[in-house]
Formats: sequence, C-alpha cells, structure tokens
Amino acid sequence: MTFAFSAAELVSLLAPRATRGATTATIRGIAALKDAQPGDLSFLGNPKYKPEVASTRASLVLLPADFAGEPPADQLWLLVDNPSAALATLCARLEAALWPRPAAGIHPSAVVDPSARIDPGATIGPLCVIEAEASVGPGSVLQAQVFVGRAARIGADCWLMPGAHVATTCILGDRVRLHAGVVVGADGFGYEFEAGRHVKVPQVGLVEIQDDVEVGANTTFDRARFSRTVVGQGTKIDNLVQIAHNVVIGRHCIICAQVGISGSTTLEDYVILGGQAGVAGHLRMGKGSKADGQTGVRTDVEPGVFLKGTPGLPFQLEQRINVLRPRLPELFRRVDTLATELAELKARA
Amino acid sequence: MTFAFSAAELVSLLAPRATRGATTATIRGIAALKDAQPGDLSFLGNPKYKPEVASTRASLVLLPADFAGEPPADQLWLLVDNPSAALATLCARLEAALWPRPAAGIHPSAVVDPSARIDPGATIGPLCVIEAEASVGPGSVLQAQVFVGRAARIGADCWLMPGAHVATTCILGDRVRLHAGVVVGADGFGYEFEAGRHVKVPQVGLVEIQDDVEVGANTTFDRARFSRTVVGQGTKIDNLVQIAHNVVIGRHCIICAQVGISGSTTLEDYVILGGQAGVAGHLRMGKGSKADGQTGVRTDVEPGVFLKGTPGLPFQLEQRINVLRPRLPELFRRVDTLATELAELKARA
Amino acid sequence: MTFAFSAAELVSLLAPRATRGATTATIRGIAALKDAQPGDLSFLGNPKYKPEVASTRASLVLLPADFAGEPPADQLWLLVDNPSAALATLCARLEAALWPRPAAGIHPSAVVDPSARIDPGATIGPLCVIEAEASVGPGSVLQAQVFVGRAARIGADCWLMPGAHVATTCILGDRVRLHAGVVVGADGFGYEFEAGRHVKVPQVGLVEIQDDVEVGANTTFDRARFSRTVVGQGTKIDNLVQIAHNVVIGRHCIICAQVGISGSTTLEDYVILGGQAGVAGHLRMGKGSKADGQTGVRTDVEPGVFLKGTPGLPFQLEQRINVLRPRLPELFRRVDTLATELAELKARA
Repeated sequence: MTFAFSAAELVSLLAPRATRGATTATIRGIAALKDAQPGDLSFLGNPKYKPEVASTRASLVLLPADFAGEPPADQLWLLVDNPSAALATLCARLEAALWPRPAAGIHPSAVVDPSARIDPGATIGPLCVIEAEASVGPGSVLQAQVFVGRAARIGADCWLMPGAHVATTCILGDRVRLHAGVVVGADGFGYEFEAGRHVKVPQVGLVEIQDDVEVGANTTFDRARFSRTVVGQGTKIDNLVQIAHNVVIGRHCIICAQVGISGSTTLEDYVILGGQAGVAGHLRMGKGSKADGQTGVRTDVEPGVFLKGTPGLPFQLEQRINVLRPRLPELFRRVDTLATELAELKARA
Repeated sequence: MTFAFSAAELVSLLAPRATRGATTATIRGIAALKDAQPGDLSFLGNPKYKPEVASTRASLVLLPADFAGEPPADQLWLLVDNPSAALATLCARLEAALWPRPAAGIHPSAVVDPSARIDPGATIGPLCVIEAEASVGPGSVLQAQVFVGRAARIGADCWLMPGAHVATTCILGDRVRLHAGVVVGADGFGYEFEAGRHVKVPQVGLVEIQDDVEVGANTTFDRARFSRTVVGQGTKIDNLVQIAHNVVIGRHCIICAQVGISGSTTLEDYVILGGQAGVAGHLRMGKGSKADGQTGVRTDVEPGVFLKGTPGLPFQLEQRINVLRPRLPELFRRVDTLATELAELKARA
Repeated sequence: MTFAFSAAELVSLLAPRATRGATTATIRGIAALKDAQPGDLSFLGNPKYKPEVASTRASLVLLPADFAGEPPADQLWLLVDNPSAALATLCARLEAALWPRPAAGIHPSAVVDPSARIDPGATIGPLCVIEAEASVGPGSVLQAQVFVGRAARIGADCWLMPGAHVATTCILGDRVRLHAGVVVGADGFGYEFEAGRHVKVPQVGLVEIQDDVEVGANTTFDRARFSRTVVGQGTKIDNLVQIAHNVVIGRHCIICAQVGISGSTTLEDYVILGGQAGVAGHLRMGKGSKADGQTGVRTDVEPGVFLKGTPGLPFQLEQRINVLRPRLPELFRRVDTLATELAELKARA
C-alpha cells in the first residue's frame, strides 16, 4: 500500500483522547514496534510488547490512554482507548483506498451476451466475458478478465478479482469475494472403468456459494454429479484449496491453504481445517471439529474433536506420539537388550 | 443445472417398461432417495437403499422392472431394466444442455495471428489469443480467454475451458478436455548452482498430451528440458495437480487432486495416485500400481503394488502400522515396566 | 520445441575441436543416448553412460575431445571440450527461438489506463489490463492476458506469461519471470472471530518480489497485513506454491512445487524446501536450512539443518525411523513375547 498521511490527518482520523510529542514526518507505512522506521506508524496492541515502545523508531505510535512516559524527539504518541481498534480504523480507510469501488457500468471491451441480466449498479470491468442468461446483481464488481458462464448467477455486492471463473449454472450469493484465478464449477472427477478405459460420468450439478464467503486465489470447486456442491454462509477459504464434487461445507468454516476435500464429504458448521490437510470422501466432520495442518482425515469426526496426524488421531494423543517418535530407535535397542537379558536369565534359571 | 421436464417428457426420453402412479410435478432436480424433495427425480441404483424408496419425497423414481409395491399420491415410478443406465441417459441429455457446442468460427474479440491455422470447424471464443503458427483442429472449442502459444498444436474435438493455457510448441491430441486455468508448458524447474546463485537451465522441450485426456482446473504441466513431458492416452487428471518436466505418464492412469509428480519420473499404464500423493523424481511406477492419498512414493514401485504412507509401504503393512500407532505410548510404558521387572528379577536371582 | 538444423549448421554453432563420421539427417530433437532416434542429437554428459555411445541411434553425438573409436554409418560425432557446455550453447539458442522477444509497444487490444507509465521499450501483449498509475519498466514483456493492478510496479526486463496477475500496489524488481496464472497480491487470510462469524481483517500491505526471481505456474502470494510479503533476490519458486501474508523469503532460496508457507514465517538466504513441504506460521528457518519433500516444519530451524518427516526431525534420525517403521508390528509382538516369558520366569522364581 502506498499512502501518505500527515500527523494532523491521522489525529483527525483517529480522534485520540490525547497526544504527546510531535513529528514532522509524513506517515507512509505501518510496522511492528521493533521493525518500524522513521515515517512509520506503530502501535502497542499487546501489553507484552510494552518494553519495545521505548526503543521504537516509529514516527507515530498508537498507545493505550493510560500509557506513561514521554516520546523522544520527532515522535508523536496518540493515546487512544484501544490501539488495535484505532489501527483497524486506519486499515479500513487504507483498504477503501486500495480497492476503490469502480463506477458502475459495462466496460466497452467486455463481451456480454445480450440475454445476460446485468444490474445497472454492477461493474463489469475490462475484458470480462458474460455468457447467455447469466445474471450479476447490484453493487457487484467483476474487476477484469472475469468469466461468468451461461445461466450462472452472481448476487449483490460481490467482488470477483481478475481471472475468476464462475462456470455455467453456478450460483454465488451476496457479498461473495473471489480472488484471482478461482474456478467455480469445474467438472467433478468421476469416471467408470469399462473395457480398459475410463468413461466420463456426466457432471450435471452445480456449485452454490452462499453469502459472505471469501475464496483465496486459484482455489477450485467442482460441480456436483447431479445436485449441488455447497459452501455455507460466512465460510472463508484460503488459496489453492480443492473442493470436490458433492462436498457440502457448513457455515462459518475456515479452510486453510492447499486443503483438499474429497467427493461427497460433509463439513458441519464451524469446522476448521489447517493448511494442506486432506479429507477423504463420503465422510462427515461434526460441528466445530478441527484438523491440524497436513492431517489426513480418514473417518467421520465427532463434533468438537480436534484431529492431527495421518491418519488423524485425537490431537493430544498425536502430540504424545510425536514426542515418542524420535525415541523409536532407542526403543528398538532397549527391546533387543531386554530380550538378551531375559534369555540369559532363563538360561541361568 | 437448471432444467425442467414434465413427467411425460421423461417417460418419452427414458422409455420405461412400465409406469406406476402419476405426478403433476415439473421435474427440476435429481437427488438421492433420502434427500429428494417434491419436484426431484430419484432412483434406486443400489439394492441396499431399497428401504428408502417407501419414504422418499421424490416426485418421480426410477426403479428396477421387478420392483414391487405402489407409489404414494403424486409420485410416478418408471420401471426400467437398469435405473443407473436410465439415469445416465438423462444425465447425458442434461450434459448436452449444459455445454451446447457453440457455432464454429472465430469471435471478433479474439486475437489470432494470421499465420495460425484454425480449422473452419473449430470455435475460437471471445478474448482468446492464438499466436503465430499455432493450429487448432476441427470441432475443437476454445471457450473464452484461452491462450495458445506460438506453434502449439491442438487436435480435433478438444474443449478448452476459459483461461486454459497451452504454451509455445506444446501438443494436444484429439478429444482432450482442459478445465479452467490449466497450464500446459510452463518451464521445468531446473537450475545449476554457480557462484552462490541459481542459474537457469534452459527448458526447450515440450508437453504432449495424448488423445482422450481430461485435466482438472488449475493443474500445471512443465515442458521437458529438451524432449517431451508426456501424458498418455485416456489418462484422467484432477484439479491442482503438478506434473514436472520430463515426467512420462502412461495410458489410462488416474491422478487425483493435488498430486505432485517430480521430474523425470515414469508412470506405466493404469497407475492410480490418490489425492495429495507425492512421487519423487527419477522413479518408475509399474503398470497398475497404486498409491493411496497423501502417500509419499520414494522408490520404484513394482507393477500392481499398492503403496500407502510416507514413505510408502505396502498397503496392508501400513494399515497394520496405523492400527498400532495409537498404542505407541502404551508400548513405551510396557517396555519401561518390563525393564523394571527384569531388573528386580535379576537382583533376586 | 520444433527446430531443424543441418549437421553443418550445428558444426558452425558448436565449433567442435574435431568431427568424426558424417550424417545426412536433419536434426530435429535432443535425447539421451539410449532414447535417441535417427534425427536426434545426443551427448555424453556423464562418463558412466560411456557404454551407451556404441549403441545409440542418434544421428549426431557430442563427445569429449579424447573419446576413442569411430561412429557407425550416418552418425556424426562432434568432439568438444565439454559436451554439457556444448549442449547448453545449443539449448540457449533454442530457448531464444522458443521465446523470441516481441517488438516493444502496446497491443491495440490491451486496456491500459492513461495514467499508467509504460516504458517505450516494454511490450504489452494482447488483452492485457494495466490499471491506473501502474508502471512497467524497459524491456519487460507482458505476453498476453496479463493483469497489473492500480499503482503496481513492474521493473525492467521482466517476463510475465499469459494470465499472470500482479495486484494493486505490488512490486516486481528487474528480470522477474512469472509463469502463467501466478497471482501476486491476493489478500492475506486473516479474520477475527466475533459473535459467531469471521470478520475480515483488512490486508493493506503488499508483496515485493525482488530481482531475478522466477515463479512457477499458478503459484500464489498473499499481500501483507500492513507491511510487505517479500521474496528475496534470486530465489526460485516452482508451480502451485502458496506464500502467505507477511512471509519473508531470503535470497537464493529454492521452493519446490506445492510447498505452503504460513503467515509471518521468515526464511533466511539459501533455504531449500522440497515438494509439498509445509511450514507453519511465525517461524524462522536459518540460512541454508533444508526440508525434504512432504516435511512438516513446526519449529524454528537452525542454519544448515536438514529436516525430514512430519513433524520434521533431523534428516538422519528420520531416515533411521523410516527403516524401523515397517518393523513396528514385529516390535509389538516381541514385547508381548517378552512379557509372557518374563511372567513365566517370575512365576517360577
């Protein structure tokens, strides 16, 4: 983010209870206390970093209202009720500057089928393709080079980054955010083996992504064999994730990068999957269950259970096993020794 | 898929041996017996679900010709020789509706080099780029925003989804289907370490994808160092798979999502790799060998062998180890106990 | 690669110390000694393949200057100081033919904001989108369908393959090479859990990719929360890799395919990560440390240490454990036997 704020502008934006010190610097960056350079804003978000305030080189520091002491020369303190909340206010301002909402309308370079229904409040950016009978709701932004297939439906206030792809008949709810290169609605991976070759099983279902879902770059979703692959409201999915056909993901789940979920598996609400975890097909993960990074989920998971390892075991058990694993060579030697000693004892007995 | 069939239309399409009952519903979905709602078609594909027929809410049910009983009010049974085959007939009809073949010709927004050879029976959709001396065969569809690099060759009756990418000099056979975001022909990952930095080894080979191969979304193939990376006829590859340079994949293999195959490895025909499996470089997997999901293949694999685990072991052995793993903490305790007892016994002896 | 050289052209290009034999074949391929067919060039790069020279079917063979013997009919030997170096000379020539530098200028189908600064020596290929205030340096090539977001900066002599994506405010140095579908600058995956749902934490930082970095197809980089995600000079990254927000990668690292690096982790210079390895968040991997393929890095790693396994252990230890793992069933049985024998002995004592 490139930005430039004077100290006065930040005082005006963040409305501190009080200020201490002064700076003539233009604020062009945000950094942790120990990393900050002159020209940066920093903040004390967690009391454990309090000792770092004295030595920070930041030009402006957000501090709790009761923070004691005085800043060095050319450093301004803003004393606020909650430094993290003040930072969030600033970040929201910056985010709006990063992603200014483009004007509504259809860019002349976009290729939009006459039968597509584009809300007048939607933005269809340059070089997008919208096929027949597709629809895009009010306030939605298709930034550039986006593809929306025949009869696909995009709700209101969505944001589709460049190269995002919503294939024929798939459905996005409202406020869905797809990052670059996301593919919604590739064919499910289904074949029948006949006479020595794999014959394609038609994949005629669709993908439905409900309201308030965000999806990271280059993640892929397969359409259902004949019903729906579903991602529930409020679920957040990271980059390079694979969601197979007929998967049903509940509401408010967290799916970290490079996770793979195999066909027909169901995740109930509030499930969390760590990065690179894999879930086998036709399983059910109960509400609030979790799998650690790289875990292999091979069985149904009860609600609230936290799995780890491959195949996944209860977290505490896997942690114990991981402590013991490095001692396996020693264990083998000890058993050898015991066997020898026992044999000697028997010989003597 | 959005569709609407009257009961009469489905009777006409599926030609049942007999019908029982009646429905006035318009059929707009397909669902399993227990999930079906009024307006859905369902089917008894596997005898084990027979008890679910009585309680299904589907409006129309495909059943074996010898099925006994009577449907409830507003439910129609179609009695057919093979309900799964009847369903496949319907799905093929739906698939043709999902993916209607566009008219042949070059969309005016496509950028096609004058030296490219586009068969008059091919479709070059909106915003595609075809570079010099590339060729596209009859019946092939480049749906939209596809890239075909210089001197690349696309055979007949291929289907390239939006954003698919075939780089310079690469070759697709006939009836190849690339889903969105597939990259055929990135550079192989090869460097020589000289004077503290990595110097690129030119990657001047190509990728050859033979007839009847299907490739899932965002999968990547690297071009060979100086010969060919090959995918054999009839092989099916899922989403987000990585195929490194000089890999040779045989015919009729199945490569599930997020698999990675390292450089110069050869897969013979009919190899199956489960999701997220990884195969190290310069190996050979014999005909019909398999690796389970998340397996790490680190050695050559004999034909027909099924590996599991990291590093991969014979499937049955890995299964036994997986049963024992949770008992490792107990094993360590038992060995401690044995050692103590043995020491006591020795002291007494 | 399609090419055609006469024997005379190759003699002229490679300037051998001497030649032996002759061929009338046109050279159209390069292959290993045992794979070569008539029309191919082959080479003796490693003395261990010396016995294969006698039976190779190649039409032209690069051999060390002191190689003894005579070629068969229709085979030409070029005797050179270093066959591998001669091959590299040929490959560099082929590479230049594969990727001829297009003429500078902006293709009429590209959509370039008037406020973007495009160097007159840069090439903006067909159907690229360059947003406001972005800049592209001299000698850089955006091949086709590339996206450069608002205020992003591309240095000199970069090459961006079709579909590569550099989001708003991100920065590429000089000579950076992005393969197809790379996404630089997706949002970091950060949410706060409030009142039963995940609230997005604004991601207002950027990604900085320094000079001489190469990035494989469909790899993704997330922008920092409010500072920079950094990839250091000369680092090489393979396909389908995930780099999370606030990751800092040092110089001259090697990151193989499908690796995932979690948020805020730092890699010092010369780190090597094998394919499908995963690194947890907020860690530091020291200079020259390594992780084998599929390793799970869960702790800080000292400089020069080589980890393997999940969770990662020192390489030699993990290798020993891998040798013992298949013997676990036997170990459990032995402990059972020892316990029985010991009980008998105690009963007798």
